[in-house]
Amino acid sequence: MKLGLNLSFAAKRWQDPEELAELCAGFGVHYWQFNLDFIDPWWPEEMRNRLANAYRDAFGKKGLSFESLFNGMAAYSYPQFLAHSREVRDAIQTYHERAIDVAMEVGAKHLGIALGGMTHRDAYDPLRRRAIYEETVERLKKLAAYGARKGLQSIQIEPTPLFTEFPNSIESSLELMHDLENVSEIPVQIFLDWGHMLCKPFMGKQADMELWIRELKSYIGDMHLQQTDGLWDRHWDFRHEEDGIVTPEIIKGVLHNTGTEDSVQYLELSFAFEDTDENVYEGVKYSVDKLRDIFEE
Amino acid sequence: MKLGLNLSFAAKRWQDPEELAELCAGFGVHYWQFNLDFIDPWWPEEMRNRLANAYRDAFGKKGLSFESLFNGMAAYSYPQFLAHSREVRDAIQTYHERAIDVAMEVGAKHLGIALGGMTHRDAYDPLRRRAIYEETVERLKKLAAYGARKGLQSIQIEPTPLFTEFPNSIESSLELMHDLENVSEIPVQIFLDWGHMLCKPFMGKQADMELWIRELKSYIGDMHLQQTDGLWDRHWDFRHEEDGIVTPEIIKGVLHNTGTEDSVQYLELSFAFEDTDENVYEGVKYSVDKLRDIFEE
Repeated sequence: MKLGLNLSFAAKRWQDPEELAELCAGFGVHYWQFNLDFIDPWWPEEMRNRLANAYRDAFGKKGLSFESLFNGMAAYSYPQFLAHSREVRDAIQTYHERAIDVAMEVGAKHLGIALGGMTHRDAYDPLRRRAIYEETVERLKKLAAYGARKGLQSIQIEPTPLFTEFPNSIESSLELMHDLENVSEIPVQIFLDWGHMLCKPFMGKQADMELWIRELKSYIGDMHLQQTDGLWDRHWDFRHEEDGIVTPEIIKGVLHNTGTEDSVQYLELSFAFEDTDENVYEGVKYSVDKLRDIFEE
Repeated sequence: MKLGLNLSFAAKRWQDPEELAELCAGFGVHYWQFNLDFIDPWWPEEMRNRLANAYRDAFGKKGLSFESLFNGMAAYSYPQFLAHSREVRDAIQTYHERAIDVAMEVGAKHLGIALGGMTHRDAYDPLRRRAIYEETVERLKKLAAYGARKGLQSIQIEPTPLFTEFPNSIESSLELMHDLENVSEIPVQIFLDWGHMLCKPFMGKQADMELWIRELKSYIGDMHLQQTDGLWDRHWDFRHEEDGIVTPEIIKGVLHNTGTEDSVQYLELSFAFEDTDENVYEGVKYSVDKLRDIFEE
């Protein structure tokens, strides 16, 4: 099994490429996912590329590389592709093309994204919801074509546990995959997050990781790993032994039973902004050490 | 006393200007603070201005206006002025000029910001920390000059409860104010957040709102109001009756004792992304109703 680490934990805290690469090398993890909280795709192209190259080179010197790039907290704060305003959605198309440019410059082959969020009225209006869905399918085709030209290998869409976002169920994930299959220039896949799928108040009977993987099997890309109590989208580290429901045994069992051991499991941890760097480091180290034992058995 | 509401609670959930203005008019609050999670300053200028005007106009039709603009979750995800890379700091200067442009287009007179966060090594290296501080003072002077040209009336800096950010204490807030006094073209003030100031594990003996206001008195701008347990920067709504330490009586007492009744108290509430629109609405409504009674006595 493949254990990876998303840079979410390090945003703001360890920004200097050399300092970050040194810290990351100490974790002994082989798969790395870059995060757009380090580089805003809107930043001017030349400095953005220099910065992206600096992260790639600093990691390279430590024998590490970025397989993937996932959007971060800043990106998730905006409505993105599901925005109410068409002009916003147009700007977001450009934003994602620029995100692919960042991915290329850090050396990542895969782009993972959440599609965004709808304004309340659009989400509850079946016609508006349908129109935004159909437009998003077209936008993803265009984005895949852009990615193909640049050398991207896949776009991976993350379902979230909210009615005002999509895909938010097995059915809506399958529909999106069917609508993009054979018509996108590079594969568009589903990026599962353990904590989103196990969120019982939102997912109900579908709060079952093995069910999601079995139903979406051929469309499964990589995954986000986090500790959670199944009540909220926690992105806890694995020191939550008592209230956490994601055990190494369950991870191993699900991946084995579904034959998805080749999907990279990127730990995506969130800490309070006001948490100390020391506590964040300890949380990441503990989680990685605990999981690595199981992954390398 | 002046009760206000920051649009933080509505980001993504209620984006359509008309829908948002209708919702907001129902709260019966007179002071409104726009939030950059609705408009990314990097978006193309023309569409960004049209969108900003649409929010201003929709609120105007309901008899509401934005006094102030504060940066939101997306902005706080980046290191901003305290970034390690000079090129990033240069881009961030542009970002804040564009934020002032957004403020002007929504009709806001005041810009509130947190300055950002340092990479671990810079924060713990006294020379680097000093250099970044001094550069930030120069950048704020330039930003104030830009604001003056555009018609902005003040820039208000929010202290946060973190050693890796500044200002993070009464002393560092006072130093920043002294260094900008009489040299900035528009007033630069301190924007206090009740929850940041009352964060005991970080503020220690300075976890005392009245102390902060007395020490910073002449530099005090507006404030952010939130419910908190004093352990983390919660930004809870006021349904947290049992564990919340910010009572209407305390708010009233502190503002009265310090003669700061004219500072607008903008409620800045944060909800989990996966929370339902219904629960968010109820939390805001409950908080506003509870506080309004006290504010209007």
